[in-house]
Amino acid sequence: MANSPEASQGDVQSQDHQDLPKAVDLSHHLSQLSKARKPSYMKQMMKHYGRPGLLVLGGGLPHPDCFPFTSLESNILPADTFSDTAAGLVPSLLPQREVPAPATGKRISVPKHVPAGSVALGLARTMQYDLSRGIRTLQSLVHELSVLFFKPAYSDFSTLVHTGNTEGWARIVHTLLNPGDSLLVEEWAYTSAIHTALPLGVHMVAVPTDIHGLKPDALRGILDGWNDNSRGFKRPRLLYINPVGQNPCGYTISGERKKEIYEICVEFDIIITEDDPYYFMQEGPYVPKEERSCSAIESADQFMKSLEPSFLKYDRQGRVIRMDSFSKTLAPGLRLGWYTCGPGLAERLERQAELSTQAPGGLAQTLVTELLVNTWGIPGYIRWLQGLRAQYTARRDTFVDAITEEFNWSVSEGKGEYEGANVYHGSLKEHGPNGRALISFVPPTSGMFCWIRVHFNGLPPPVTTPGSDEGTGTHEGQFWARMMEEGLLILPGWMFRGESERPAVDPNAIGHYRVSYSDGTGHNMQKACKLLSKALASYFRETTDKS
Amino acid sequence: MANSPEASQGDVQSQDHQDLPKAVDLSHHLSQLSKARKPSYMKQMMKHYGRPGLLVLGGGLPHPDCFPFTSLESNILPADTFSDTAAGLVPSLLPQREVPAPATGKRISVPKHVPAGSVALGLARTMQYDLSRGIRTLQSLVHELSVLFFKPAYSDFSTLVHTGNTEGWARIVHTLLNPGDSLLVEEWAYTSAIHTALPLGVHMVAVPTDIHGLKPDALRGILDGWNDNSRGFKRPRLLYINPVGQNPCGYTISGERKKEIYEICVEFDIIITEDDPYYFMQEGPYVPKEERSCSAIESADQFMKSLEPSFLKYDRQGRVIRMDSFSKTLAPGLRLGWYTCGPGLAERLERQAELSTQAPGGLAQTLVTELLVNTWGIPGYIRWLQGLRAQYTARRDTFVDAITEEFNWSVSEGKGEYEGANVYHGSLKEHGPNGRALISFVPPTSGMFCWIRVHFNGLPPPVTTPGSDEGTGTHEGQFWARMMEEGLLILPGWMFRGESERPAVDPNAIGHYRVSYSDGTGHNMQKACKLLSKALASYFRETTDKS
Repeated sequence: MANSPEASQGDVQSQDHQDLPKAVDLSHHLSQLSKARKPSYMKQMMKHYGRPGLLVLGGGLPHPDCFPFTSLESNILPADTFSDTAAGLVPSLLPQREVPAPATGKRISVPKHVPAGSVALGLARTMQYDLSRGIRTLQSLVHELSVLFFKPAYSDFSTLVHTGNTEGWARIVHTLLNPGDSLLVEEWAYTSAIHTALPLGVHMVAVPTDIHGLKPDALRGILDGWNDNSRGFKRPRLLYINPVGQNPCGYTISGERKKEIYEICVEFDIIITEDDPYYFMQEGPYVPKEERSCSAIESADQFMKSLEPSFLKYDRQGRVIRMDSFSKTLAPGLRLGWYTCGPGLAERLERQAELSTQAPGGLAQTLVTELLVNTWGIPGYIRWLQGLRAQYTARRDTFVDAITEEFNWSVSEGKGEYEGANVYHGSLKEHGPNGRALISFVPPTSGMFCWIRVHFNGLPPPVTTPGSDEGTGTHEGQFWARMMEEGLLILPGWMFRGESERPAVDPNAIGHYRVSYSDGTGHNMQKACKLLSKALASYFRETTDKS
Repeated sequence: MANSPEASQGDVQSQDHQDLPKAVDLSHHLSQLSKARKPSYMKQMMKHYGRPGLLVLGGGLPHPDCFPFTSLESNILPADTFSDTAAGLVPSLLPQREVPAPATGKRISVPKHVPAGSVALGLARTMQYDLSRGIRTLQSLVHELSVLFFKPAYSDFSTLVHTGNTEGWARIVHTLLNPGDSLLVEEWAYTSAIHTALPLGVHMVAVPTDIHGLKPDALRGILDGWNDNSRGFKRPRLLYINPVGQNPCGYTISGERKKEIYEICVEFDIIITEDDPYYFMQEGPYVPKEERSCSAIESADQFMKSLEPSFLKYDRQGRVIRMDSFSKTLAPGLRLGWYTCGPGLAERLERQAELSTQAPGGLAQTLVTELLVNTWGIPGYIRWLQGLRAQYTARRDTFVDAITEEFNWSVSEGKGEYEGANVYHGSLKEHGPNGRALISFVPPTSGMFCWIRVHFNGLPPPVTTPGSDEGTGTHEGQFWARMMEEGLLILPGWMFRGESERPAVDPNAIGHYRVSYSDGTGHNMQKACKLLSKALASYFRETTDKS
């Protein structure tokens, strides 16, 4: 049972921006389950808890003397551990990895008790039951981060902590979708987000994308021409989108395109879930090794201006539910993130947490608050994020360098869905300078993933056995199995289809594969590219021979 | 996305007890939602991750070099901090609270990296994405605790960590109940458990209880005579029960009665959820102050034998889902607990976590594992639990002492539903030795709560205003408001009705109130009892005057 002495302290809400419009009422979007959810009696009681002079013997709180942890400490890397330019050293990309020395770092030290009335954190308080909105200083912090980075275009937005974007999304699904509803997703989409909604009987509606993300005209086309009868289910009311470092494609949706998508969603009354864990890993265009120069050190202001804005910047109605996570910027094991959304939706999302996760873990709330508020401060966090972007940019560069070294490449300006991007077409070195392009990709501009295409056109149809599934019955699946035989695991495209039964691309013509460059060493990336070319050579040779 | 190098290491399962029967198939109980839940593609891929020699560039794992926490430390109270007899000092019950000195405690210290192949914990691993079943050493620990304390009567039981019993129960609700189903609860039941199921349109079926808990004959009567048509919904398939330190009544269900209940559940194919956070706070019968003597120090074995067994001891079929929590034994902010149940149910509960909470927080998993495995060890944990029981026994005694000092009491052997217990009947001191008993209770035998009855019989009907709700329209509600005016908050009975529309007792005849003795000082408990008697005196005087 959750009880909290903070209950009467009210909510952390936006105090500024009062000239901006207020959120519109979107309560008609709530699911039956969410509408039926009443505030719990326990929480109704909590509003009394802070009344001056009231003696409370109400809550089932264990006494803090019975918490065995009397202190919590952690050594912290300096905020400027990593160079803020990609040319900086990335020790762990080297075969002999060197861990950065934490000698100059700071130390977090949290006691059990703090003086009465102090705003400092003490475990007696942070390890107790708490409101689902979490520690008050953390509430203020995430609110401040949303204002600073994302600048919602309405005044009364709420922020609310959750236990990571996976749980955050599960809560949104149950708050907004009824069984049999539908969901707009990108043509290639984050598979786990889809799998969260599928058991509810939710129908996926995949929106075509190009190399710059979801295509606004395609979105409009789907919504404008919607016919319940021909589709067999109602028009979607919710869009799930992963706009930066898109998983699996690695593209970055520009502010301009986000604005276009947003306006269509206003017109058709669609709620947007912006799942954006890779937001600060906006790595920018890939520059080939030989043309790369050491970029100048950026100011915090330059860094922030260099980031494509969030959907929130255009959200004048409160119809975006943005999800941020500390998983990629600090550590996944924290299981801590937050929503930024309209107050009505936030209230429903909070009610759901009260009777499930209750609140994110007290240790994570304590450490993150101490780190970002009392150790680094927000300027330090921005500096950390600059270094983090440089780290992942260096990783992206290392992988693209490795793959470009392994094949013969021609680079062309993209056409059609690739317009505005450089497309890399690779042929096997053993096929000489005029070999056929078997593989192609566009270097990712953010995130952790490179999306690779293998061109099977011209090969005879795959040899399949009756009953073989999508994972084994196509060239895409059979080439994946070949890579596994060679000792390489990257993820096959079929896992990421927005509509699993309707492949946007024939997997016998083009196979798609997601490569992660986030945690390998440079050596491993080189080795992976060698295994890839070896598998390609043998697969094409044998498949051609069989025909 | 959750990926883990542990994926191929398999599950921690019971290796012993192979002479016991295996769990029966209960898959016909799964909800539509749970049946429709497929293993996520991401998790299907994980089974490959540990293959020797396989190079994996599959997961979206941030590099551990980018985790800013390079160490985690915590000072720990000694396992024998608290005397294991209730006569021991409870410093925080004194007005001037004294915090136990941690000078003799130990220190947990977790580095970021541990040598390759080491089983020691390092943050680079424990703060990474992980399987929903958590850190392997923790998996083994909770399994060992279930074997040690609860001894399931079948061989292939599973244990699975969750993020606290509230989330654990929410997962069970969605795994087993469809909209419109029904749920067996105790006559007075934990309100938050009910509120978790209500939004699904689940109907509550309250089973009558006596002072020893849920009445087996009443349970049989409900199930045997069930008629879908007359009730308007189908017979329940799930029982939610809170058998030790029952919230709100404070009773303890004996092993013998658990066995009776279990056999009825076998007969009628009911799944039992045993939500048991207060299990180790089995305080035993209250002994009046003047008769109390310092009890002898117990051995660990005596302690364990003194505890009423869990439902698991009688579970030969795997139809009990037991929930344990570290919230009451270590700290609520850990958000960590575990299930013990049949393997089929555990698999479905795990699938649900994969696409919501993923795993409990890495910091909590790390600290609890370090504490219980590497610092105290299990014998130390048992010693800690002995001390904890003594602490809460002293708190129970302090509260019951305080209330018995505030009123004139007669103590009688209970009859009917109170048979086998001493019932305390209290009258106001100002009414002299023959004053009417206005208040009664049975001292709790476990947990954190004392359940108090106020006897309004003979008072004129309450004066209510049209539209007043259950919280204000009855004597129970109006006396609660009177206590609030006096400055005392304890919780009113209407919050805990198993069936909210069908009070088991007329709240104009008897009002019920839950008092928590878990975290107040002795001084506060005395003050609360004074406020209670003051409120009683004025309420009865004024209400009688009005008639």
